[in-house]
Amino acid sequence: MTDSKKFDRRSFMARATVGGAAAAAGTALAAPAIAQDMPNINWRLASSFPISLDTIYGGATELSQRLQEATDGRFRIQVFSAGEIVPGLDAINAATDGTVECAHSVGYYNWGKDPAFACGADLPFTFSARSKNAYNYQGGGIENYNEFLEKYNLISFPGGNTGTQMGGWYRKEINSLSDIQGLKIRIAGLAGRVLEKMGAVPQQLAGGDIYPSLERGTIDAAEWVGPYDDAKLGFHKVAPYYYYPGFWEGGPTVSFFFNKGKWDELPDVYKSLLKTCCQAVDSNMLAKYDMKNPTALKELVGEGAQLRSFNEEILTAAYQASNEVYAELSAQNESFKTQYEAMLAFRDDWYLYQQTAEYTFDTFMMIQQRNGVLAQSEG
Amino acid sequence: MTDSKKFDRRSFMARATVGGAAAAAGTALAAPAIAQDMPNINWRLASSFPISLDTIYGGATELSQRLQEATDGRFRIQVFSAGEIVPGLDAINAATDGTVECAHSVGYYNWGKDPAFACGADLPFTFSARSKNAYNYQGGGIENYNEFLEKYNLISFPGGNTGTQMGGWYRKEINSLSDIQGLKIRIAGLAGRVLEKMGAVPQQLAGGDIYPSLERGTIDAAEWVGPYDDAKLGFHKVAPYYYYPGFWEGGPTVSFFFNKGKWDELPDVYKSLLKTCCQAVDSNMLAKYDMKNPTALKELVGEGAQLRSFNEEILTAAYQASNEVYAELSAQNESFKTQYEAMLAFRDDWYLYQQTAEYTFDTFMMIQQRNGVLAQSEG
Repeated sequence: MTDSKKFDRRSFMARATVGGAAAAAGTALAAPAIAQDMPNINWRLASSFPISLDTIYGGATELSQRLQEATDGRFRIQVFSAGEIVPGLDAINAATDGTVECAHSVGYYNWGKDPAFACGADLPFTFSARSKNAYNYQGGGIENYNEFLEKYNLISFPGGNTGTQMGGWYRKEINSLSDIQGLKIRIAGLAGRVLEKMGAVPQQLAGGDIYPSLERGTIDAAEWVGPYDDAKLGFHKVAPYYYYPGFWEGGPTVSFFFNKGKWDELPDVYKSLLKTCCQAVDSNMLAKYDMKNPTALKELVGEGAQLRSFNEEILTAAYQASNEVYAELSAQNESFKTQYEAMLAFRDDWYLYQQTAEYTFDTFMMIQQRNGVLAQSEG
Repeated sequence: MTDSKKFDRRSFMARATVGGAAAAAGTALAAPAIAQDMPNINWRLASSFPISLDTIYGGATELSQRLQEATDGRFRIQVFSAGEIVPGLDAINAATDGTVECAHSVGYYNWGKDPAFACGADLPFTFSARSKNAYNYQGGGIENYNEFLEKYNLISFPGGNTGTQMGGWYRKEINSLSDIQGLKIRIAGLAGRVLEKMGAVPQQLAGGDIYPSLERGTIDAAEWVGPYDDAKLGFHKVAPYYYYPGFWEGGPTVSFFFNKGKWDELPDVYKSLLKTCCQAVDSNMLAKYDMKNPTALKELVGEGAQLRSFNEEILTAAYQASNEVYAELSAQNESFKTQYEAMLAFRDDWYLYQQTAEYTFDTFMMIQQRNGVLAQSEG
């Protein structure tokens, strides 16, 4: 209980004595304190995503619904899709400047403004969704990111994850590093910088422009998300080679960004509730992708997608190129360096631990899958 | 809004007119509706776990804290550790019979009462934590379990996960199926039935009795949880071979169980809030284990634990034994059969999908870990 609340309660008691009978009934006294704790609030949220990306866009509507239900409609967040208030890539900036109270976005969309924004989303070759969550919630990740975000008048909490993304659609096979030289690939941000170091020519294209560009051959390849989202855009019809993994997004965190001034005005009740809702949404988005992606991948392959894994030569070169980018960014940007280095010790511990129970269990289960016995009740 | 609420609002307005001035102030009118929506509730929760298992026991205290904060103390759940109200293994029954309003437990503790209880926790060779969450939240898992639980006057939501557990501590190496013949191993429930089919002799022992039994050689082996919890009991000093994976618990869900009658009495606001809090707790427990286990495993190995993987002969035999158990239980128990079969199609889809981006990314990262470059900023 804060002092200000005690003060309000007393001032109400002074007023309540005017209506003696109601006060005597014993119910009226507590009430204004409740109204004080849980005021009516209406916020606007700018999503970076179109409604058509229902899983990722749905994270924001889910947050809104959980909040509304848990407060009986007192705390409402109205969700606007990309372009309704601001363009999708400006959502975070709109929360910074107070155009909206909150945004649902991916931090790396703002990496051009400040590379350290990417640290709260994903960095190539860092974490899977599992280990990213551990780092975020229990390894100081959220706190590290928010320390950086203060200068942009923001506070952020994870609000979704896609799992390891796919490596995108290619018009021809990628068998060696020479196949990457001059490759025009639609890929954004920090990942584009990595591919550029490997000899590719990154292109910035909005989602709707990718298909015609691939079809015409203006670009050679494009990365998007994963099977469920990719299937909607039909890339497999014009660029059949579907590569994995998207090493630049092993476990990308989608985030809620709140205007810090607006956040600070919230009563503690709402702050705690909002954090709890964000974490539930974060977990639920991953569960949605994990339920939808397997079916979508089967359908894509049924329609002609050719699954390919990047080989070790490509992945190793990409890992080295990533480290070069990290060295450059760390030299230029203290916030980037601090956050990146905070990930390293746990990254090593995790991928050591991961080699034991989890990986062995998964591997055995995948062998059974290949044996064709997992869908039956007696294998 | 329920009809009963409208009724109460009207009846309050009738009373409020007695205290005319307070009503005229405009603040008193709305308040009792709020108090109605968010009444003061005090529940008791029986945990199946001792306080010393801070990560798993902590799931219940975290639920309590999140609820309390989000309602400014109106909805409180008081947590009692194993033995305080009822023995740990009776926690679910105490929620069924209304001794407490809720329990925090693992469904398979009740498998002797009804094998279908295990379906909400874990079945050998089904899911990892990632795929378990997808099944639970997006694949009908929660609904399937609750359909079964109705006859026990319960409703349940996931409230934690440990990740794939370890396979336990062994006084001698397990190199072939013959090493399992006659093996006295502390292991509970359905997993014990599987090992029994393989020739082992399962033993039921409380946590505190395991160490002395291993030390004296009364038992040959014992399974517990994973590195962080196991380290506290010091098994490595008396049974140094630490096997993985715990194939019987690829992604065990810890659950909150609520007395159905008490749940039904909750206003919708609290029902929604409680579900949101449970999901946040569910996600957060896994993050805690994932942060703590890697360090604990390194320490255990430093103190002499000998890491060993079950070989393919053992795992394959265990998989077949599990299927025999499933066939027997399905023939006897319709609820078990329904839930088990609901898992199978997604299990197959998941472990096909898992072979692409996620597994390849993880594998590459583990290779880098073995190369010793992950803890450094330039690898």
